Amino acid sequence: MPNIVEQTAENLTRIRSNKPLVHNITNFVVMNYTANVLLATGASPVMAHAQNEVEEMVSFASSLVLNIGTLTDSWVDSMVIAGQKAGSVGIPIILDPVGAGATKLRTDASRRILHETKVQVLRGNSSEILALAGSDSTTRGVDAGNSMAEAATVAKQLSEDLGTTLAITGPVDLITDGTRIVEVSNGHELMPYVTGTGCSATAIIGAFAAVEKDMVIAAAGALAFFGLAGQNAASKAGGPGTFMIGLLDALYNMSPEDLIAGARIQEK
Amino acid sequence: MPNIVEQTAENLTRIRSNKPLVHNITNFVVMNYTANVLLATGASPVMAHAQNEVEEMVSFASSLVLNIGTLTDSWVDSMVIAGQKAGSVGIPIILDPVGAGATKLRTDASRRILHETKVQVLRGNSSEILALAGSDSTTRGVDAGNSMAEAATVAKQLSEDLGTTLAITGPVDLITDGTRIVEVSNGHELMPYVTGTGCSATAIIGAFAAVEKDMVIAAAGALAFFGLAGQNAASKAGGPGTFMIGLLDALYNMSPEDLIAGARIQEK
Amino acid sequence: MPNIVEQTAENLTRIRSNKPLVHNITNFVVMNYTANVLLATGASPVMAHAQNEVEEMVSFASSLVLNIGTLTDSWVDSMVIAGQKAGSVGIPIILDPVGAGATKLRTDASRRILHETKVQVLRGNSSEILALAGSDSTTRGVDAGNSMAEAATVAKQLSEDLGTTLAITGPVDLITDGTRIVEVSNGHELMPYVTGTGCSATAIIGAFAAVEKDMVIAAAGALAFFGLAGQNAASKAGGPGTFMIGLLDALYNMSPEDLIAGARIQEK
Repeated sequence: MPNIVEQTAENLTRIRSNKPLVHNITNFVVMNYTANVLLATGASPVMAHAQNEVEEMVSFASSLVLNIGTLTDSWVDSMVIAGQKAGSVGIPIILDPVGAGATKLRTDASRRILHETKVQVLRGNSSEILALAGSDSTTRGVDAGNSMAEAATVAKQLSEDLGTTLAITGPVDLITDGTRIVEVSNGHELMPYVTGTGCSATAIIGAFAAVEKDMVIAAAGALAFFGLAGQNAASKAGGPGTFMIGLLDALYNMSPEDLIAGARIQEK
Repeated sequence: MPNIVEQTAENLTRIRSNKPLVHNITNFVVMNYTANVLLATGASPVMAHAQNEVEEMVSFASSLVLNIGTLTDSWVDSMVIAGQKAGSVGIPIILDPVGAGATKLRTDASRRILHETKVQVLRGNSSEILALAGSDSTTRGVDAGNSMAEAATVAKQLSEDLGTTLAITGPVDLITDGTRIVEVSNGHELMPYVTGTGCSATAIIGAFAAVEKDMVIAAAGALAFFGLAGQNAASKAGGPGTFMIGLLDALYNMSPEDLIAGARIQEK
Repeated sequence: MPNIVEQTAENLTRIRSNKPLVHNITNFVVMNYTANVLLATGASPVMAHAQNEVEEMVSFASSLVLNIGTLTDSWVDSMVIAGQKAGSVGIPIILDPVGAGATKLRTDASRRILHETKVQVLRGNSSEILALAGSDSTTRGVDAGNSMAEAATVAKQLSEDLGTTLAITGPVDLITDGTRIVEVSNGHELMPYVTGTGCSATAIIGAFAAVEKDMVIAAAGALAFFGLAGQNAASKAGGPGTFMIGLLDALYNMSPEDLIAGARIQEK
């Protein structure tokens, strides 16, 4: 595996020069912030969910981000249609199973998307991932409950079962493709006080996956980039409001050199 | 009635330690800001509106906030389904009848929710509340027209008729359960220049109602807390943009002691 | 034609004293920011899209802004219903054909709205406008491709064909009613790094069109006002986040005198 930090700095440069189109079918709460996060990163976001449009939009896109945060059956149908098209044109799909385990609708929708499309990265907190693994874990809202260690054990197995890379986020993020395990320890405790930081992490993985074939490198790099921007923003913030806004500035201002200096990525 | 200010400070501490799950079925305009306001306050927001999910989500929640800002019939159906479940599991329902009186759809939807579910706090401006009282009041958009005094007279009667606590917001807020009347005079004139401050007030009432059985205390305390945060934010703001963001910081940073020192709550 | 800059300063004063109700049927990504932009400008925004409500809401409004950013067929139906009512009550319609040319759904929806309602200002980037003109232009996402000169040539003809004023935005904005041509060169390069700045420009045209019968003056003035606010915000910004928020402050704080001093409007 190449040096992930150096490859991530190279990928950031690629995003800014290629401005890859990241197609998002995401939730109402975070649409605006997610779009701004992608723009600040250097990518070109587009949000489109109509069943009679998503295939055409996917055909222009470099990656597809699916997020079930305010799902209904009709939106999940759109996600599946878009995801199948993404599979046929060969762009990566990143899935954020927001609140999987909390309700049957969310668990079922996440599983349906995993079964009917070829998800390349599944990004969630440990409870969400464990819920999809079929363990006894339960989640409540979108907050995490189970331990990192428990998640890691299940994650490797689940990653193998589903043939998808997992990005399990928390105080320390865990990325695995069933064989390799990478830990990312960037980030800041203010992040959970801003809605959509998890969703934004998923979207940024979409941006990196648009320019990087190795999904472990794409996901780990995206999480380090986003977490480091969070650290930079927190150093100037007076609370979650100025943090949220400063985070956009920090994403925009981060140079590849800053990223090399600050990324905390460990291959295990 | 206990000292409302002291009880409110205690309730703020409870919110931050319990992090109650506040289930919102709200409008597209304010979803992001409302979620951030609840996070900054210390609560755990969740937004979910699918008819085949809301009952399950309500069963985990500590309060339910309904807001008709960008309503359609289907969303109102979801609100009623969620509200009936909230009644059966015994969590409080807070209703924001955005634009009631402005269009028939809004007035009818608000009345339907009031009739088919057990709303515990109805939060609106005087025009909206008067419209629901069946007076000749008309509202235009979401802005207020009628006088506070007129609203107060109608409010007490309407509160009795409907068996719900009213929180009528304006330059001075009026809270009544038909018997008691409390005035809150915190707030700042920049607030109406930020979309969703009314909706945010309603959501914060949801957070306080999750930890307080007396709805007059919950509503008055929430409005004082939110208004005082507005005052604190305004003192550093350069306009409505920095005010909106500083308000999130101010909610997050307000200590119970700050609240006791600054809350302007008067029992009449 | 009166002096556009002086008339624009007068129109800004009118917006702030009349607070015209601007009815928006717009996309999920920008609803919050658009509402805040309109409030900061001095107008009264309302968002309402239900097919059984839009006609009643239009009847109270001073202008109607239609934006297809996250369209579905059902939303386009609402836009047409609202637009036909706007025609019958005589308020201006401003259309933002987000992503026209990128997908068939967007091109078809834009053309349908243009054919079935009386759009008074069509605001888009050159690719979007060219796509509606039926040229060979293709657009990708919401970003521009074709040259300003090419757009200008087509624009005058298209404006005549459709009988609508065009506002084609880019580094230099071009406004034409088929006869007159006006260029606006305010703005800042950070604007494309914030989602919804194009949509916000369209909404501000709606505010100016609510108080000004000459659509060339309304559109050119709105774009100069918005662009100048962008310049002012950029001078204090540390990146796209603080720029986005400072832009709201700058809109709110701009005096008619500031506008006269800074507007760069040229009649050709």
